[in-house]
Amino acid sequence: MTMTSPQAAQPAERVHAQQAAQSTPAEARQLYRDGLVVPTTGWAAGFTQANMVVLPQEWAFDMLLFGQRNPQPVPLLDVTDPGATSSPLAPAADLRTDLPRYRVWRDGELVDEPTDVTDLWRDDLVTFLIGCSFSFETALMDAGVPIRNIEQGCNVSMYRTNIDCRPAGRMSGPLVVSMRPVPGHQVVTAVQVTGRMPQVHGAPVHIGTPQALGITDLSAPDFGDPVNAQDGDVPVFWACGVTPQAALMDSRPPFAITHAPGHMFLTDIPDSVYRQP
Amino acid sequence: MTMTSPQAAQPAERVHAQQAAQSTPAEARQLYRDGLVVPTTGWAAGFTQANMVVLPQEWAFDMLLFGQRNPQPVPLLDVTDPGATSSPLAPAADLRTDLPRYRVWRDGELVDEPTDVTDLWRDDLVTFLIGCSFSFETALMDAGVPIRNIEQGCNVSMYRTNIDCRPAGRMSGPLVVSMRPVPGHQVVTAVQVTGRMPQVHGAPVHIGTPQALGITDLSAPDFGDPVNAQDGDVPVFWACGVTPQAALMDSRPPFAITHAPGHMFLTDIPDSVYRQP
Repeated sequence: MTMTSPQAAQPAERVHAQQAAQSTPAEARQLYRDGLVVPTTGWAAGFTQANMVVLPQEWAFDMLLFGQRNPQPVPLLDVTDPGATSSPLAPAADLRTDLPRYRVWRDGELVDEPTDVTDLWRDDLVTFLIGCSFSFETALMDAGVPIRNIEQGCNVSMYRTNIDCRPAGRMSGPLVVSMRPVPGHQVVTAVQVTGRMPQVHGAPVHIGTPQALGITDLSAPDFGDPVNAQDGDVPVFWACGVTPQAALMDSRPPFAITHAPGHMFLTDIPDSVYRQP
Repeated sequence: MTMTSPQAAQPAERVHAQQAAQSTPAEARQLYRDGLVVPTTGWAAGFTQANMVVLPQEWAFDMLLFGQRNPQPVPLLDVTDPGATSSPLAPAADLRTDLPRYRVWRDGELVDEPTDVTDLWRDDLVTFLIGCSFSFETALMDAGVPIRNIEQGCNVSMYRTNIDCRPAGRMSGPLVVSMRPVPGHQVVTAVQVTGRMPQVHGAPVHIGTPQALGITDLSAPDFGDPVNAQDGDVPVFWACGVTPQAALMDSRPPFAITHAPGHMFLTDIPDSVYRQP
């Protein structure tokens, strides 16, 4: 899940995009490790990308419980041992270097956006890897459902809602949703396709009435970009992987590292693993 | 999931069984709180029963991570705040009194089986409520799949396997499986029905070859009772809720409380909530 948008691609980058899609996750991570800084949308097509949250062990129980209690916005794909620098989702990857860009948080405030966090790593850091809607966007397109934000070359629209997540210890915050305009006759398909993918946010949480979620203006998202609906589109809302970052901002742990928006962790796991038959 | 079997019912108890099935979860819990000690099999038909594990907060992260990493044997339905005496799964229930019987563990050894643990409760205790195969047995019977252990009035057979759970901190142990003999032509149905219930152990982990799991004699289960297969039955193995109790025995936390085998926590949640469409 991204919070900012990749800017309109230049021709050179468009060529690059084709190579990006055909790269393996390992090849892509090697490029990022070597210094390439790009959003990961479209890279290593068919493989699962993950949101990343890194917290000191002293906060890890609260975060783990927050995920257990809020599985739609915070579907935990893996949680590492304290100090670990890799995950079974990509055993050869280094969590400290293999994302294109990170964010560093102190007391809930963003303080830096480095491309390597090796110097900041500590033996007590626990890494949470969280499912990402990139996986279900692929599945929706496979089922013929148009993804307007991809058609329009911008990021998805995301909104804070008036629904509180179920708190866990010191972790609390609002449910953040992403919105995709879906042609009315394909809303059922969108529900069915994403309902089979509970580990990447699952079925929508709401359909059709933004005001019921406390959203007054769809054209003014809290994160991401405005997306234009076409005639006959219905706004469909999914629980969003930005939710844990919103909780970090509200809950203010002394130290945290996350991926930078759109600059995800590329796993070795095919998207199909997270699709139920 | 039970580790011992309800004994053959006496006539008086058979009459009672009909009343038991028709009771609401709240009525059943009131009877247990008032002193009735019976296995909960067949009580409050259609409502979800849960395994219970209670640990000091100092061990709670390891247990929560153990569940996150081993969702088939340890499907976490709810995890309470430290010291809490109730759960959203049954808000009016008291976790200290409303199970018919408990087990108390010190350093991994069983030391008592009281019917009330109010005196042992502490502000730092975290309760884990874990999905139970009673839910999917009902779904299998609804789909016409015979449950041999129910036909034979005994407990299901359970076995330690040669498969290790993925450890989490100090928590480790073998995968424990339950086995149900299923008529060969209904094995597909059994897979499909339970595959739609991932929060109560989900699809089988193995079909047909016990030796591949390190099980040398199906007639000598490690927990529960031997169950007779009929001609044409195939042994089908599911991840089992006894797995966390086996991990407690192996990992030896200083203090733990669990339900007594077969004496589960009755929730207010209909089984249908845990069935995917």
